[in-house]
Amino acid sequence: MSNGGGASSSTHLLDFLEEPIPGVGTYDDFHTIDWVREKCKDRERHRKINSKKKESAWEFTKSLYDAWSGWLVVTLTGLASGALAGLIDIAADWMNDIKEGVCLSAMWFNHEQCCWTSNETTFAERDKCPQWKSWAELILGQAEGPGSYIMNYFMYIYWALSFAFLAVCLVKVFAPYACGSGIPEIKTILSGFIIRGYLGKWTLMIKTITLVLAVASGLSLGKEGPLVHVACCCGNIFSYLFPKYSKNEAKKREVLSAASAAGVSVAFGAPIGGVLFSLEEVSYYFPLKTLWRSFFAALVAAFVLRSINPFGNSRLVLFYVEYHTPWRRKSTRFGKYPVLEVILVAAITAVVAFPNPYTRQNTSELIKELFTDCGPLESSQLCQYRSQMNGSRAFTDNPNRPAGPGVYAAMWQLCLALIFKIIMTIFTFGLKVPSGLFIPSMAIGAIAGRIVGIAVEQLAYYHHDWFLFKEWCEVGVDCITPGLYAMVGAAACLGGVTRMTVSLVVIVFELTGGLEYIVPLMAAVMTSKWVGDAFGREGIYEAHIRLNGYPFLDAKEEFTHTTLAREVMRPRRSDPPLAVLTQDDLTVEELQAIINETSYNGFPVIVSKESQRLVGFALRRDITIAIENARRKQEGIVLNSRVYFTQHAPTLPADSPRPLKLRSILDMSPFTVTDHTPMEIVVDIFRKLGLRQCLVTHNGILLGIITKKNILEHLEEVKQQVEPLIEGH
Amino acid sequence: MSNGGGASSSTHLLDFLEEPIPGVGTYDDFHTIDWVREKCKDRERHRKINSKKKESAWEFTKSLYDAWSGWLVVTLTGLASGALAGLIDIAADWMNDIKEGVCLSAMWFNHEQCCWTSNETTFAERDKCPQWKSWAELILGQAEGPGSYIMNYFMYIYWALSFAFLAVCLVKVFAPYACGSGIPEIKTILSGFIIRGYLGKWTLMIKTITLVLAVASGLSLGKEGPLVHVACCCGNIFSYLFPKYSKNEAKKREVLSAASAAGVSVAFGAPIGGVLFSLEEVSYYFPLKTLWRSFFAALVAAFVLRSINPFGNSRLVLFYVEYHTPWRRKSTRFGKYPVLEVILVAAITAVVAFPNPYTRQNTSELIKELFTDCGPLESSQLCQYRSQMNGSRAFTDNPNRPAGPGVYAAMWQLCLALIFKIIMTIFTFGLKVPSGLFIPSMAIGAIAGRIVGIAVEQLAYYHHDWFLFKEWCEVGVDCITPGLYAMVGAAACLGGVTRMTVSLVVIVFELTGGLEYIVPLMAAVMTSKWVGDAFGREGIYEAHIRLNGYPFLDAKEEFTHTTLAREVMRPRRSDPPLAVLTQDDLTVEELQAIINETSYNGFPVIVSKESQRLVGFALRRDITIAIENARRKQEGIVLNSRVYFTQHAPTLPADSPRPLKLRSILDMSPFTVTDHTPMEIVVDIFRKLGLRQCLVTHNGILLGIITKKNILEHLEEVKQQVEPLIEGH
Repeated sequence: MSNGGGASSSTHLLDFLEEPIPGVGTYDDFHTIDWVREKCKDRERHRKINSKKKESAWEFTKSLYDAWSGWLVVTLTGLASGALAGLIDIAADWMNDIKEGVCLSAMWFNHEQCCWTSNETTFAERDKCPQWKSWAELILGQAEGPGSYIMNYFMYIYWALSFAFLAVCLVKVFAPYACGSGIPEIKTILSGFIIRGYLGKWTLMIKTITLVLAVASGLSLGKEGPLVHVACCCGNIFSYLFPKYSKNEAKKREVLSAASAAGVSVAFGAPIGGVLFSLEEVSYYFPLKTLWRSFFAALVAAFVLRSINPFGNSRLVLFYVEYHTPWRRKSTRFGKYPVLEVILVAAITAVVAFPNPYTRQNTSELIKELFTDCGPLESSQLCQYRSQMNGSRAFTDNPNRPAGPGVYAAMWQLCLALIFKIIMTIFTFGLKVPSGLFIPSMAIGAIAGRIVGIAVEQLAYYHHDWFLFKEWCEVGVDCITPGLYAMVGAAACLGGVTRMTVSLVVIVFELTGGLEYIVPLMAAVMTSKWVGDAFGREGIYEAHIRLNGYPFLDAKEEFTHTTLAREVMRPRRSDPPLAVLTQDDLTVEELQAIINETSYNGFPVIVSKESQRLVGFALRRDITIAIENARRKQEGIVLNSRVYFTQHAPTLPADSPRPLKLRSILDMSPFTVTDHTPMEIVVDIFRKLGLRQCLVTHNGILLGIITKKNILEHLEEVKQQVEPLIEGH
Repeated sequence: MSNGGGASSSTHLLDFLEEPIPGVGTYDDFHTIDWVREKCKDRERHRKINSKKKESAWEFTKSLYDAWSGWLVVTLTGLASGALAGLIDIAADWMNDIKEGVCLSAMWFNHEQCCWTSNETTFAERDKCPQWKSWAELILGQAEGPGSYIMNYFMYIYWALSFAFLAVCLVKVFAPYACGSGIPEIKTILSGFIIRGYLGKWTLMIKTITLVLAVASGLSLGKEGPLVHVACCCGNIFSYLFPKYSKNEAKKREVLSAASAAGVSVAFGAPIGGVLFSLEEVSYYFPLKTLWRSFFAALVAAFVLRSINPFGNSRLVLFYVEYHTPWRRKSTRFGKYPVLEVILVAAITAVVAFPNPYTRQNTSELIKELFTDCGPLESSQLCQYRSQMNGSRAFTDNPNRPAGPGVYAAMWQLCLALIFKIIMTIFTFGLKVPSGLFIPSMAIGAIAGRIVGIAVEQLAYYHHDWFLFKEWCEVGVDCITPGLYAMVGAAACLGGVTRMTVSLVVIVFELTGGLEYIVPLMAAVMTSKWVGDAFGREGIYEAHIRLNGYPFLDAKEEFTHTTLAREVMRPRRSDPPLAVLTQDDLTVEELQAIINETSYNGFPVIVSKESQRLVGFALRRDITIAIENARRKQEGIVLNSRVYFTQHAPTLPADSPRPLKLRSILDMSPFTVTDHTPMEIVVDIFRKLGLRQCLVTHNGILLGIITKKNILEHLEEVKQQVEPLIEGH
């Protein structure tokens, strides 16, 4: 190739430039990918492998590996997510119990496991097994009395603060991306944004460890949202084993969609709900093939988790539930001191939570208790009704149960717990530790629901002749189930926070396993969505995305304005003219000048300054790389060299330097719309095809450009002009 | 406006033409809709209503009605589908039993209801209640003996043939669209095709009646697929109550998507599965709002069905299951005589089915029996195991059960039933009666599965020391469940026929209600899909759509070829040049000549013959309507009038006739791609945006046009060139 020197304009010799230039076609950090280009790249790769596969056994094996890599990567992701979720469950459980005491027979047993090995078989005695020692028993040698209460209180706070401190320090020092739930960022990444390191191995490792610490510290946060992030990290890491996925940002996002389904699946033990969550809430581009693979990943993950689940729940992890997104407050004084902030919130949480049994216990267990109906085996305080008859069956079957002192006490404690949870959850959202919002919101809803349920039940008891209760409550049949009220409340609260609809109903349905509750659940979720929408149509993810300023084009919001493409395109009337490249009369120097003077990500290429007809589009990054590459590898390319994007080199004077052919980096099929195209269509095209930019023409003449950023700005503008209307539409 | 006469070229006076011309924007039968235009129309309507709503209370009420009409129409559709499904269930059940006998105490009771009223309470005696008389008992006066057997046999055939004859005659005379399952056509309609009357009230009425007759005739067909058609008819009819949906083909299809979910929901009692079916299998354009409404419609329908379900199944209609699509054989001799064909198939079915209990009974009941495991209360022949111990518990709990004579007899009958079902189902598919394929395929799979299950069970009993069984079968635990084999077989067979994946698993999961079976189900569905794909990637719907030649662009198939837009576009090299209109120098006569000489559905409008730059696109139908309208209503429009598509009229000689402005029918934002665009991108755009045509340009100059038909032809061409490759990709 070295004879390519000299000023010859022979295109033949220059054709080695048609070889892919390294770096062309990759993306910078915090940039948006080009879905169309990525999908074309993938099909090209696929065709290459297919055409080669008959050449040799090795090529055939490679093609098989390629064909099956999609299933392999989702299987691996499912396995890893399930295993990690199990690990996190066990560790968080153990550390949560460490706050209260240790198991003398085996340090690594949590409270429940410790007592399993003891021989106490009666239900009530189970919690008080001799092997399990509270800190007061260990240090002071006595289990009862105010001294030991204070000792236990102190140790509880000590451990809570230690865990919180460790968690926030680890996040701050090693992986700042590990904080929060990660769902808004994953949504943004899936829509085509690049955030390097957000799904890397460091984030995975630190997030796993700090998630355990954060949950164990007793902060009002959940582990379900972060589990989605953990699963996506697994998906991203495993996709590096397969060139099909590691080298293609669009294909990688298919894996991530499946991984997020696996994450929800292990968080709630709800594989179908996980797939619907991925479809409804998280994913942007979701082909049917991904639906099927997501379902598979979700099932594998749920299966693995069930296999390693040491508690033997047949329903996977029923009500070891919770999750979701953080809301980072941007303007608190403490925001600048994340460690101090975490310690402070953890301290307040620990101090206030300990005395109230409903706030001290694990939130997931609290939800489980609230959902559970009072049966004969239930020892909970919530079930201490005064029994009217003396038979044990009366406890279960009598529909009219007057509340006993236990229920009254529980009501007070629940009311206090409700206030505490609401306040602490608001303040915990934005802490710099892994934190989800799902369990806390469910807990708030469940507490409120249970309170209402018990109130209605007592109403029904004392006023059983009211026409309402008369119709509903047949004799001998349970007519009010406070547990169902709690479940409906939990779903409604979560629905209001996240604005999930179908996936939420399916998740709760899978958790509780009763088709018969679907109707009240659906009514509750629908009502809470409508009430929420009256205040603003954004769920907490969208709000978070907007607060962080991510370039996310929401597919759910409809664009209802009458603007045309020419009103949104750049340049605007007052702007300088559009920076364009002509196809064959620029020099390298002029090209570099244009690039240096502007900061655009790409430039339209036109036939000539006179005709302004559009030829194609070239990306800034590709031009820079191509010029550098040519000056390094091709002799004769000087500042004065002519740059051409055409198929054949322009005819040049004999003494002019060798020209530079850049056709290989020219996108010859840029998307165009006419200036009269309504913006609603343009927005639709951007959403459905995942475009980064679109050129605007009038009668074939280039007028301007619309980028994703322009669209987001325009959406913001029209939103401020017209006050948001509540539309059932 | 009458002063608009004379040859003035004043654009002002002509502007009343900007008013919508009646008929512009509607579609002919068997044409494809323009999704983009429909969606724009809807947003326009929405904006109008919104801007008016503050004017008066009446306008505000109208806007509320409009906003809520989406929920109203899906509620009505759900209610009607549920009610119709219940009606069909009851009627088909009653008519099915009429074939065997009548209830003397009340003619309108079916066998089961008849015996409910009797006082026989023991399980075994239930079937033999005194009020229920078989035909032999009624006519011959005796219940046993060969004479009465033959009498019953004869009456069975008589009724079967009568029902089949009535069904095929009704379909042939009143509503030819009522035959088959309707799912392929609904798929095509949802993708944007117009088939007038396919979802009309006549089709609904006749389909409902003939479906009952066809099911009752005992033909090997199911009612689940047709129920989807029935629900879609309801959706279509109710959408006429709401201008928002009746006047917009795109919005109407949202209602139809929801209706198809409601149809599956009532067919299987599986609301979530219905939504997923609508999403995975049927729908083309499925925004998230539709997901939520579909879910609602499915729930309402399931709820109504449960309320009127007279059999008191709490799980909605558990295993009153079946459905799917017909395959019309195009080349049988009998195909020309649909009535004869139906009678013949019905006669063979009736003659062969009667002697074998497994083919005589209702297919849904057969499936239910096959799925059911043998418990102590099960009186089925399939459960006649020899019990080793004498306790009644031994019947249930003993894992090793040797088959009794009943099981051996059942095995033979099942094998015969399997062969019969396979043959008859193949021949029943294409009959001109409403017919679904779901139940017959499930029955075939369930029979095969049960046979395998019993065989494995007996193997495990006689060879319980084989290493396989040794590991699995712990002592005292049921290790082989033949019912589960039947269930897995049913899912696998159905999966192979329809290539449904997630929705099938969810439907079967909702039918059986056990998360624990999801893994074997999924493995079976996956395997059957892979095996099926090895023979050809099309499910039965797609095959049917292809056979009927509907213009359906499948979203599931990936386009993997390297052709460019210029290779597919028309005109091809040998073709005459593209028929185009110039924007301001045609006369009405020339325009009419172009329209009459060609048969294209639309024409690109260009600046001038010289520059060939693209201005817009005008539809043939709109041009014809606009010219007719102008010649009728506007004075001075003669053959010699100049036609212009520009904003301002061209300057004309003073004596020229009044020009005709057609800008209002010009689509000024036609979709364009460059000639270098890879066809994979073009296909993607067509699918995602639902285009009808796309113009091809090169450097801003119009080159040609690509229509949906061109793309389908191209797909067919490349498929024939390259033999289909089995790609796990």
